[in-house]
Amino acid sequence: MLKEEFDGYKYIEGGVCAARGFTANGLNCGINPVKEKNDLGIVYSEVPCNTAAVYTQNKVKGAPVIVTQKHLEKSHGISKAVIVNSKNANTCNPGGEEIAEETSRLVANELGIKPEEVIVASTGVIGQPLHIGPFAEHMNQLVSGLSVEGHTEAANAIMTTDTVRKEVAVEFDINGSICHLGGMAKGSGMIHPNMATTLNFITTDVAASPEIIQKALSDVVKVTYNCLSVDGDTSTNDMVSVMANGLAGNSIITSEGEEFKIFKQALYIVMLDMVKMLAADGEGASKFIECTCKGAPDINTAITAAKSVIRSPLVKCAMFGGDANCGRILCAVGYADIDIDVKKIDVELKSSAGSILVCKDGMGLQFSEENAAEILAQKEIYIDINLNQGDASARAWGCDLTYDYVKINGDYRS
Amino acid sequence: MLKEEFDGYKYIEGGVCAARGFTANGLNCGINPVKEKNDLGIVYSEVPCNTAAVYTQNKVKGAPVIVTQKHLEKSHGISKAVIVNSKNANTCNPGGEEIAEETSRLVANELGIKPEEVIVASTGVIGQPLHIGPFAEHMNQLVSGLSVEGHTEAANAIMTTDTVRKEVAVEFDINGSICHLGGMAKGSGMIHPNMATTLNFITTDVAASPEIIQKALSDVVKVTYNCLSVDGDTSTNDMVSVMANGLAGNSIITSEGEEFKIFKQALYIVMLDMVKMLAADGEGASKFIECTCKGAPDINTAITAAKSVIRSPLVKCAMFGGDANCGRILCAVGYADIDIDVKKIDVELKSSAGSILVCKDGMGLQFSEENAAEILAQKEIYIDINLNQGDASARAWGCDLTYDYVKINGDYRS
Repeated sequence: MLKEEFDGYKYIEGGVCAARGFTANGLNCGINPVKEKNDLGIVYSEVPCNTAAVYTQNKVKGAPVIVTQKHLEKSHGISKAVIVNSKNANTCNPGGEEIAEETSRLVANELGIKPEEVIVASTGVIGQPLHIGPFAEHMNQLVSGLSVEGHTEAANAIMTTDTVRKEVAVEFDINGSICHLGGMAKGSGMIHPNMATTLNFITTDVAASPEIIQKALSDVVKVTYNCLSVDGDTSTNDMVSVMANGLAGNSIITSEGEEFKIFKQALYIVMLDMVKMLAADGEGASKFIECTCKGAPDINTAITAAKSVIRSPLVKCAMFGGDANCGRILCAVGYADIDIDVKKIDVELKSSAGSILVCKDGMGLQFSEENAAEILAQKEIYIDINLNQGDASARAWGCDLTYDYVKINGDYRS
Repeated sequence: MLKEEFDGYKYIEGGVCAARGFTANGLNCGINPVKEKNDLGIVYSEVPCNTAAVYTQNKVKGAPVIVTQKHLEKSHGISKAVIVNSKNANTCNPGGEEIAEETSRLVANELGIKPEEVIVASTGVIGQPLHIGPFAEHMNQLVSGLSVEGHTEAANAIMTTDTVRKEVAVEFDINGSICHLGGMAKGSGMIHPNMATTLNFITTDVAASPEIIQKALSDVVKVTYNCLSVDGDTSTNDMVSVMANGLAGNSIITSEGEEFKIFKQALYIVMLDMVKMLAADGEGASKFIECTCKGAPDINTAITAAKSVIRSPLVKCAMFGGDANCGRILCAVGYADIDIDVKKIDVELKSSAGSILVCKDGMGLQFSEENAAEILAQKEIYIDINLNQGDASARAWGCDLTYDYVKINGDYRS
């Protein structure tokens, strides 16, 4: 998928190590029996980071989510490291919080920092016991291998059913200071974020206060991660954290002026690209789907409508089958919790093979099935909905529902 | 599936013709090119019926839903016939309401009744033109073939992706009057009713006022159809109607006393059995799933939790794969919009092969995978959730998510 271009921002390599002062590493510690697959990752900043995070709104919360919240409260929003494992969610299991705390202590001891400066996260199967042994036995090796090149090992460590590694970073300028912001994320199922996201760790060398980072993160999450749905299931372990170590040397951002806008836009670019990668690599996905809802009376209406379409299993199956089924799209808009006049809705389907209007004024149109089939045979499908009743617009992202989704999730634990 | 037994109620044959004074018929009028498949059905009462109905809450409403609402308003809740077609939903298409009105006039002329005494319904593809020709050409044949045996032809006419016909009827006694109540329903996709249902037509010879029928219907819908989810998509054409012609000879029920209870229980039995048939025959389903949530602080909490589990694609895939994945069940309870303590939740999986506790006090348990696999290999799976924080309970019904669901919906229109 082509990255969207934004004036003043340049995509660069490096993921979580793109910003100055960050190193990372990853390895297999034995939680995952497949020795070639990393299951433990670390990110470290040589100087303290002002930090913000958003967490899952699921009432069943992973132990690491609870522990990370406590840590950032205790440290007043200062962190220096992320430790994250895959293959076991450390959720709904005996002693989960103790394991997360002990893991943090192991990291802290090895790095010479405080346990509350550690962001701890887990992803994988829920309800399984997790033992401290593998962490204890490999922490020295993990920390001693920290390097600027380690971002790929760390990004590999958080993959579960993901088929591709998800990293992105940008370079930009704040008042003459060259800044960097990058991150890594994991998919690819149990994805229907609610005021949070799947696991996503972002690092930057921008100098900004914890409050202003939180403000930027909350704003951007609303129009990126919270507009992503792979299967409608909101995970227990969702978390996005942003660590800002200030090494870019800009004067610290503490209010919502021009510099805040530049920083927030960088965050948007990185999170947008992450979200699109997550959608394209959704469990079993054969097609990436972007739904744009424009002409809405307000932004929340636009978001709700676009998300409803992206979440609909029937729309997802139609996209898998290359069926230009406008009825299912209208149906999904219709059952969304929004106040609209359905008789004004236009729907257009687009891809690299062209575009076709399938619905005008809420009525299905006759169209060339051959043309529609060619458009929907592409790997990236765009559903454009115009409500024609306002100026607000929003996008949501997802993927098709395929045999492979059923296959992957029919037997995930084993 | 075995029918649940209720004291004082006897299951009988006859579907929508089980009650005195009702006849029915069905045929192929050419909307469906498969000549062997009925696509037009009729139900007729020789005497006027007090009538109640509930409709989809989707803002995109099928033309027949709108027209039926108008008819029952104009007739003050009196109806004498149902006309229903499959293969075309008469929704989001040009002139849909005129087609529904004209269809009603054709039926009314043929039967010698008023157009507003006709309940008109459609199911099938959304957004396609529908022509009056096939209706006009076959109305005489349809009406002249009305018979007490015609309930099977009518029930066949409303089937779409259904693999089995759905009819049920019961006989019961109100103060010495032998009463009957029966119905027919259609599945099997786009099913996630919201204050309404898929298409379901119920007839009875009980004498009851329109208001009391509406009260009974609204109460029963809440704990039957609104607790059913096949795919989370709320249809544009959902409708349940109850026609009561009074031929049983009981003194008319106009208030919520003992006789109301007996009538409402009959409605509950028939709708419960319909819902279970619809769940078992959900698109592509290989397994029926019933989720019971007990120990809830109130009925709405119990319903919301049970429905959230039934709707979860990840739970549905796990049931397909025979994976006793308690984490996904807890996850779905956790993201439901309810206020509960997740640390008190127990989860048990049951089937004809036995039962197994997979979660206690919100924590996953270790259990025999072999035993669990045997339990989940059965065709009917019961997920029992005990919130352990109150006395309310509710059930919800659905099915697993299979390769066949994707196959059916990847190319439904053609």
